[in-house]
Amino acid sequence: MNTALLNADKTFTLESKDAQPLEEGQVRLDVAWCGICGTDLHIYRGHMDKRLNFPEVIGHEASATVAEVGPGVTEYAVGDAVVVRPLDACGECPACERGFGHVCNNLNFIGIDSSGAFQQSWNVPAKLLHRLPEGMNLELAAFVEPLAVACHDVRMAGLKADEFSVVLGGGPIGLLIAMAARAVGARVAISELSESRLELAQKLGFDTINAGSDDVEAAVIEKSGADGADVVFEVSGAAPPIRQMTKLARVRGRVVVVAIVPEPTPVDLFQVFWKELQIIGTRVYEPEDYDRAIELLASGEVDPSTLVTGRFGLSQIGEAFQSLDTDSQHMKILVNCQD
Amino acid sequence: MNTALLNADKTFTLESKDAQPLEEGQVRLDVAWCGICGTDLHIYRGHMDKRLNFPEVIGHEASATVAEVGPGVTEYAVGDAVVVRPLDACGECPACERGFGHVCNNLNFIGIDSSGAFQQSWNVPAKLLHRLPEGMNLELAAFVEPLAVACHDVRMAGLKADEFSVVLGGGPIGLLIAMAARAVGARVAISELSESRLELAQKLGFDTINAGSDDVEAAVIEKSGADGADVVFEVSGAAPPIRQMTKLARVRGRVVVVAIVPEPTPVDLFQVFWKELQIIGTRVYEPEDYDRAIELLASGEVDPSTLVTGRFGLSQIGEAFQSLDTDSQHMKILVNCQD
Ligand SMILES: [Zn+2]
Ligand SMILES: [Zn+2]
Ligand SMILES: [Zn+2]
Ligand SMILES: [Zn+2]
Repeated sequence: MNTALLNADKTFTLESKDAQPLEEGQVRLDVAWCGICGTDLHIYRGHMDKRLNFPEVIGHEASATVAEVGPGVTEYAVGDAVVVRPLDACGECPACERGFGHVCNNLNFIGIDSSGAFQQSWNVPAKLLHRLPEGMNLELAAFVEPLAVACHDVRMAGLKADEFSVVLGGGPIGLLIAMAARAVGARVAISELSESRLELAQKLGFDTINAGSDDVEAAVIEKSGADGADVVFEVSGAAPPIRQMTKLARVRGRVVVVAIVPEPTPVDLFQVFWKELQIIGTRVYEPEDYDRAIELLASGEVDPSTLVTGRFGLSQIGEAFQSLDTDSQHMKILVNCQD
Repeated sequence: MNTALLNADKTFTLESKDAQPLEEGQVRLDVAWCGICGTDLHIYRGHMDKRLNFPEVIGHEASATVAEVGPGVTEYAVGDAVVVRPLDACGECPACERGFGHVCNNLNFIGIDSSGAFQQSWNVPAKLLHRLPEGMNLELAAFVEPLAVACHDVRMAGLKADEFSVVLGGGPIGLLIAMAARAVGARVAISELSESRLELAQKLGFDTINAGSDDVEAAVIEKSGADGADVVFEVSGAAPPIRQMTKLARVRGRVVVVAIVPEPTPVDLFQVFWKELQIIGTRVYEPEDYDRAIELLASGEVDPSTLVTGRFGLSQIGEAFQSLDTDSQHMKILVNCQD
């Protein structure tokens, strides 16, 4: 069974490993596809070395088939198609006690804090699985995890049909948020600097704002047909959009901070006061967001296949990461873990 | 009829003016008491010159008695005790159309954008009045306006009984927020630098944190009995508490920005993301906040009389402002507009 171990020096070691015995409540998966996420690239580039134990198996956007069922597992059977919600909560901390295990204080983010999906055969707790509908494409199912992020953002924003939202940043997560927003019936515009990303957004049917050459504020007001966006999604993490985000929202509008902003960054709080805005922090997803993402993909309401800019076998995972690292045209690379 | 006109040079001109004819929908008030607000001091110091037309009558924290009823006014009669909600909305802008006239795009804030309460006799639209209960002390009623700010903040925070809140800044608005928070049954601590303000907060029965010498974060965690405050009220407007505010909230906690922060200021957005916080902007009040403030004062549930550090007649209004301008020990100065 092939396993791809990431080393601290941007290399992978491919190892052949025997399947390990299943513990209580675990299932063994044959991993089908696993997407490479921005966080994976971050890890690869060495920005999260403190959190990782190299060499480590990363990857957390997996689709899979159940290959073996461990003791105590009754809900799944061999052959079931599933995805893994890679958040293993402690169940005991204040966040867990409040019912927010997805932001558990002792969260084991599988694929970061413990071994992930870039392996042919993978043992995971059955409680983290979501079943896929009959016949669902497993390549598409690799988008469940990132689309669940987008569904969580849209849900936390309380975005409703006919509301106008603007997405600041047209990378993979920005585009998936735009798709999830469109799926609830909201109007969407994507603001982005990169010409190629703007083109892709347009190809996907989205209204766009060229953040480099357009007056973003004026464009948002105009497109809103009112006094600004109902919801602003800040996905870029860059200082200028963060400074501008509260300007773009209407009275009592919502600004969702999706990007991870490591350092304290200037925010125009006067706008927050003046228009009684809400700034809403969102992180990963809850189980219902996974269910919603599966539903949207299975029904075809959201079709992210255009986002796939590369497919690699597990044995070429080094090339896959190198390609994503060096070519900014990439949106989503998928790894076939049986290949 | 005496009227106090503020000049642009920190002086007042006292004029005797004939009562002006009432327009449709107006009432003439005999102003009883009017508090001096931080905004009034701001105006006095020349920080809002662009918005003011000097010489101008300022003042917006008034209690009064109806002296004459104009054409078309049926809800009020001579002798009624009232307070004025000094927000005259246009009724037509997007904010008004959304039902948020208190943040109207063309708001006429009476006492700032048009003539206010520092006069013996004052014509105001009857639609801005709230009736006071029989026998309510008119000096106490001068606190309705600032307490309505506090009630609005507490309501917008969704603060509930037994939740723990921390108020950053122990000035008049901070103390009133603490009182309004206590009135909903929440636990409260006030964090403040000034020793005299800390003493006053303690005298009012509040738990305090010395922001100069205590570890504020550790103190909030400890007092919360959990992982942080359910609600943080940022009232200081100072950079260090703004940088710290998101650290103090628990998972899914709320941070209410009460202070007016004119310039973009660093906010720790990582905390917002990590704990899925909400930052909530609040501005002035809505009619129900006025009703709630009247109820709290009339019932004695909130007693702000300890906050009164000076009383002046209208003819001494220059001294009143000078005293507030130069003596930081002041909390609330009330002006008797019939004196
Ligand atoms: Zn990810
Ligand atoms: Zn936990
Ligand atoms: Zn005021
Ligand atoms: Zn208006």
